Parts: sequence; structure tokens; C-alpha cells
Amino acid sequence: MSFSERPQAAIMSNPRADRVRDVARLAGRSARSRQGLFLAEGPQSVREALVAHRERLSRGEEGLVTELYASQACLDRYPELAAGAEGVRTRIATDEVLAAMADTVNPQGIVAVCRFLDRPLDEVLDAGPRLLAVLCQVRDPGNAGTVLRAADAAGADAVIYSGSSVDIYNPKAVRSTAGSLFHLPVVTGVDVADLAARCAERGIGILAADGYGSLDLDELQDASAARRLGASGSAGLDGEQAPSYDLASPTAWFFGNEAQGLAPEELALSDHRVAVPVYGSAESLNLGTAATVCLYASARAQRR
Amino acid sequence: MSFSERPQAAIMSNPRADRVRDVARLAGRSARSRQGLFLAEGPQSVREALVAHRERLSRGEEGLVTELYASQACLDRYPELAAGAEGVRTRIATDEVLAAMADTVNPQGIVAVCRFLDRPLDEVLDAGPRLLAVLCQVRDPGNAGTVLRAADAAGADAVIYSGSSVDIYNPKAVRSTAGSLFHLPVVTGVDVADLAARCAERGIGILAADGYGSLDLDELQDASAARRLGASGSAGLDGEQAPSYDLASPTAWFFGNEAQGLAPEELALSDHRVAVPVYGSAESLNLGTAATVCLYASARAQRR
Repeated sequence: MSFSERPQAAIMSNPRADRVRDVARLAGRSARSRQGLFLAEGPQSVREALVAHRERLSRGEEGLVTELYASQACLDRYPELAAGAEGVRTRIATDEVLAAMADTVNPQGIVAVCRFLDRPLDEVLDAGPRLLAVLCQVRDPGNAGTVLRAADAAGADAVIYSGSSVDIYNPKAVRSTAGSLFHLPVVTGVDVADLAARCAERGIGILAADGYGSLDLDELQDASAARRLGASGSAGLDGEQAPSYDLASPTAWFFGNEAQGLAPEELALSDHRVAVPVYGSAESLNLGTAATVCLYASARAQRR
Repeated sequence: MSFSERPQAAIMSNPRADRVRDVARLAGRSARSRQGLFLAEGPQSVREALVAHRERLSRGEEGLVTELYASQACLDRYPELAAGAEGVRTRIATDEVLAAMADTVNPQGIVAVCRFLDRPLDEVLDAGPRLLAVLCQVRDPGNAGTVLRAADAAGADAVIYSGSSVDIYNPKAVRSTAGSLFHLPVVTGVDVADLAARCAERGIGILAADGYGSLDLDELQDASAARRLGASGSAGLDGEQAPSYDLASPTAWFFGNEAQGLAPEELALSDHRVAVPVYGSAESLNLGTAATVCLYASARAQRR
């Protein structure tokens, strides 16, 4: 059944309609928190949301997408979106209505209202994770989303946001994840001291990404490569003492605020402070770059 | 001599003055190109600009910063900026004037007008570079700047922008470099076919970062680590054939457009297409993430 045959598919054309305003309010954190709903905008994000939606339904869980608004042109161009939205309340809307609903000026013809998808911390930890990305006091929505996308690429088991971090359901954060928000478990509102205690109980090491760290990520990677490739002991390390952390072991990486880095109390919770080497004269790495290097280093050590 | 003692330090307070508008026009590409000038905004960026300015003067070259506009509060807070600006025409301005000049709503109290700093391609290639980042048809200013910052961190010898890429002097791009724009040589407006020919003449290998690449970056890194750590031949590679490119050799990485990646004609110019492994279910890596992983892999292989 195509959308145009559905009875509810009368085209929404009034950008000042109550329903449009209700959806648009989800750009604000208070409306999102109150309703437990957020917006996914654009074909890529909505496609991934619908995949996650169907997976949930197939497991007998509540669906993820509650409403879908799209232009006819968008559904004509991406027929898989319509096909994937069976059972989701769907309305055809004008571009003007979609622009009024969405946070972006151009939502590329489609907006989905989704239920919050964060998981309880215990559920994530009980699943035996090997690689976790923990964002402490990260404030920029684009960074929060970019790190999540990088964590997904690196095969992290979950991304955990401290209570003091930006809301991952912020529309800009959702966009920055490029659909990865729907790929791996996310935990929000976490107290990092509590998290650190639980990691310790479970044998998950905590590494703090810290420009002033005493351990050098390159040395940890060399030691890991030496083990993997069967080089004899620490001989490959030019006689230096072998680093004191095995990157292949279960690890939670702590990443700090964009401007200040990790706070002293956050650093104190970590087992080791690890510096990403800066070979050139950059003053520092941006958060996304540092997180990428750290998470990929762990992923390589754990997977090969 | 403090700023307040200078005769020219009468405070600029009219945001509609001609001079303010002239500076503000540098937010646009045509005004920048016509004058060969661009804006650095905020203490971090201006500090790095002034360092580069003094280095040029000490080499007997023309200075980089032509004018400096700052609030008294900013100069009081960062006295090293005033101290580093000797010989630069400097004016104290109100926050309102600075906001009118700058691209950002909040330029953090300081704006510098700088001369274009890109270098000729031949100069960069004749210096015997070992690691180059080449951006082909990159359109987002934030990405263009973020890759430059990552290239600086990875110790790249230069960053090269194709003629079809976004203008690196765009204020958002300048901001995204976090001062790295002033650290390493930048080449703009390059024809990538011409660049590829010159790289070939000089024995610089071209690697295309390409999600569909036949070479896997992990395998190249393992082979490099095996060489470095003295593992015997390719034994560490589980009997697989050793990869056909040595990451430690002089390399130009080609990075493509954010949405489409590298064009077929750009891929055809490369010696190898190299895929960054995606361990999780991310559909792709964002440009900054992919460039970070590739450049750091080369840097590690070249430096250790």
C-alpha cells in the first residue's frame, strides 16, 4: 500500500498547525524530556531509525518511531523509507511544514518522531562490554554526536554520557551521529564516580584521554602490536619497560570537556592517564580527533 | 608601551564605520580574494597568527598580521597578545565593533586581519615532504579546518586543497583549525592531476582514503609494526601476503568530498585505495575521523 492510498495521507500544509508546533517543540530539551521523544531528520537518520524500529518490534519490544512526516517527493525518491515504515503513523507534509517541524532549515523531506532509546547502565555493563566511550561534561552537540559516530565505527559496545554532558537527543547531536545513534547502546545521565566503581567491580579498566597523561598511546600500541605479532617480550620496545596497561583488555575511555579536558576528579577515577601523541605543532587535538585515535587503538588491539 | 598610551588607541565605537565594514567584508570570499586578506578571530587563533607573524619577520619576510582590533578587556586578560603585536597596527574597539567585524557572534574580544599564507606547490614539494594531506572537493569549512588541525597534530608537512575545495580562509574553516592554520604550510587551488604527476616524479606515493579500497589500513599498519618490531618477515601477518605499500614511505593521502568521497578520476590518480576499517555498524566515517586515522597511521609508521 503506497502512502498516497492511505486515508490519513491528506497532505499537511499548514505550518502553524498545533501538531506542527508540537513536533517543533522537540527541538527544545524540556519538551523532549517531558515526552521522552526526539526528532530524527533527513533520509539517512530516518532510515537507521526505522531499521532499529523494526528490530525492536521483531524482539517483541515497543517500537522506536512513533510518527513519520515526509514529503511525497522524498518518499518517491527513497521508497525504502515508506516500505520500512509499516505500522508507523505517517503523514505526507509540504516542505514548508517539514521545515517548520525540523531544527534544520532543510530536513531533506523527512522527519521522524522517535522514543528515547537510552539504556540502563547496568544492562550495558552486564552485557560484558569490551570497549566503552564515556563523555564527561561534553558541551557541544556536534562533538557529542561525532564521538558517538566514531565509537560506532570503532565497534565500541556503548557510548555513555555523564549527567553534565549535552543532551544526545539535541537535533544537532542526532544529525552529527549520521545514524549511528540507532546502532549501539547509549546511556545518559550517568554519575561518573558510580560508573568508575562499577567498572572496577567488573574488571573494566578506565583510561583517561589526557594531553598531560604519563602513558603514551603509541607505546601502548607498540606493546600491543608486539604481543600480537609475537615479537619477543618487550624487546621491540627498545629495551624500555613494557607499558602497564594492555590495550586488548576491556576498557572504558573517558573523554573530557572540549575546552578544559577532564576535571581533576574525573582524572582521579581513571586507572591511567593516556596522552595521544601530537607529532606536529598543534596545541591540542579536538575531541573528535582524540576520541577517534584512542578508540581505534583499542579496537585494533582487541580485534586483531 | 601599553596600548592605552598609543596615540592611535582612541577606542573604535561605531559599528557602522567604514573601516568596520571593510573588515567585516572579509567574511566573504570575493573580498578576501580581491585583497589577499582574511580574518583570525579569538585569542587562540590570533596568538598563533602573531607567532607566525614574528617568525616571518625574523626571516626577513613580510609580516602576516596587518591589523589587530581588540577590546581593552581582552588585552588585559591576555597581555601576551599585546606584547606579541609590536609593529602591527592595533586599535582598541568596543565589543559591539568587534562583533560587527567578526563572523562569529562572539569573537572573544580580538580580531586580526592577516595576509593569505598559502605557499606555492613547488616550494612544498621541493622541501622533501614525507606526509601530505590532500583535500579534494571538500565543501564544509568545518571539515576543511578540522582535517588541517588533525594533519598538524599528526605532523604532516603540508595540507593541500584542490581548486574545487572550500576556501580555507573562510572564517568557519579558520576557527576549526584552532590556530593550526598558522603552523604548517598550506597550498590552495591545486589541480590534483598535476599534483599526482609531481608526486610521482618525486617518489611520493598517493593513497586514496576510500571506503571501498582494496588495501586495509589495519594490514598496512600491522606490516609496518612487524618491520619496526623486527618480527620475521610477514610471519606476523598470519601467512597472508605482505601488503604492497610501506606506510613509512613518503605519502600523500587523498581525502574526498564529505558526501560522495573521492571521484573516479581522483581515485584513478592514486597508487592504492585504502579502506579505514569500520569495526561496528557505522555506515561510514566522517571525513575528520577518516583523515585522523589515516594520517596517524602514516605518522606512527614514519616516526617510530
